[in-house]
Amino acid sequence: MRISELSAATQVPVATLKYYLREGLLPAGTSTSRTQARYDASHVDRVRLIRALLESAGLTLARVRQVLEVLDGPEVSRHHLLGTAQQAITPEPPEHPDAEWTRVAIQFVDRRGWQIPPDEPLLVLLGEQLRSAVAAGVEPADETMLDPYADVADQLAAIDVQSVPEAPERALRQVAVGTLLTDPLILTLRRLAQQALSAERATR
Amino acid sequence: MRISELSAATQVPVATLKYYLREGLLPAGTSTSRTQARYDASHVDRVRLIRALLESAGLTLARVRQVLEVLDGPEVSRHHLLGTAQQAITPEPPEHPDAEWTRVAIQFVDRRGWQIPPDEPLLVLLGEQLRSAVAAGVEPADETMLDPYADVADQLAAIDVQSVPEAPERALRQVAVGTLLTDPLILTLRRLAQQALSAERATR
Repeated sequence: MRISELSAATQVPVATLKYYLREGLLPAGTSTSRTQARYDASHVDRVRLIRALLESAGLTLARVRQVLEVLDGPEVSRHHLLGTAQQAITPEPPEHPDAEWTRVAIQFVDRRGWQIPPDEPLLVLLGEQLRSAVAAGVEPADETMLDPYADVADQLAAIDVQSVPEAPERALRQVAVGTLLTDPLILTLRRLAQQALSAERATR
Repeated sequence: MRISELSAATQVPVATLKYYLREGLLPAGTSTSRTQARYDASHVDRVRLIRALLESAGLTLARVRQVLEVLDGPEVSRHHLLGTAQQAITPEPPEHPDAEWTRVAIQFVDRRGWQIPPDEPLLVLLGEQLRSAVAAGVEPADETMLDPYADVADQLAAIDVQSVPEAPERALRQVAVGTLLTDPLILTLRRLAQQALSAERATR
């Protein structure tokens, strides 16, 4: 298909598609003349993925590029797959973290029995998010606040790991893209479930 | 305390505090002279809340303003509390939603037995997020994808509603701020639990 047809199929303007091509987010099509190229179904999929990561997952263009680089990178073994996928889906840790709160996060995962290397950047992020919540007055004002959410996270991880396909490149996509795109769904469902529970109690 | 002391207590630069004052995010202090004012503990709390909403919850300044307006607004009855809190924590729905996917979302919450008014904006958001995930190839490629996450959302809502204090102004804060600030904690814990589960399987 031509770029105008790719635009019609994805509902993304031609100017935006050309921008993705220039930025290397979208692989070049097959040249048919000096100024024209042909695109195929893989381009439609890629454009949809870019739009989903930008709009639904709310990533910046720079982070979309990182995720796509991991997906396009060399094939990874099943063993390294999760680490590679997580590298793509983990936000940057803050620049000046509070070491005391990182220690609280390390002790928390230890107490849970989660085997996490103490230099894992997610622990810095967890410590900072906990510090923010405590500073803003969310209760209980210590790491015990995390317990009910960690129980929920264990269930989410079981769903996530269970749904990973055997083929490595599909598995990487499912873990990285699946986690990024179901994050916002979980937060929306949380709000709807709050409303449903509240409506149920009001009519009792 | 003076503005320099408020800055020291919150580790936020004076220039930034003056910006919050000009923008009305931070209430004015008590004037002590033409150019000086005194601030108290409530100002420290407010600055910490603004920082937490900006940094941990990742809200824009405009959305922080909306949340603070709700918290500072007239006292709400317990009955309207959740609706008011949710109004503050719900992202803007997309501008051109796909009506077909909104219908899928409405049918989904009906099937769950969640009592949600069909014109609830969260349903539009849910439909769009589902559309994005399906377009990007997350499986299963229909609304049954939502079932395991909705089970988790029911548990999250039970935790959220259980932890609401009796006093209305503290309750509003706990629901609005608590939900916004525990959203990122849940997503970080999800990634850590994925790692923990993967490490456990690798050593078995």
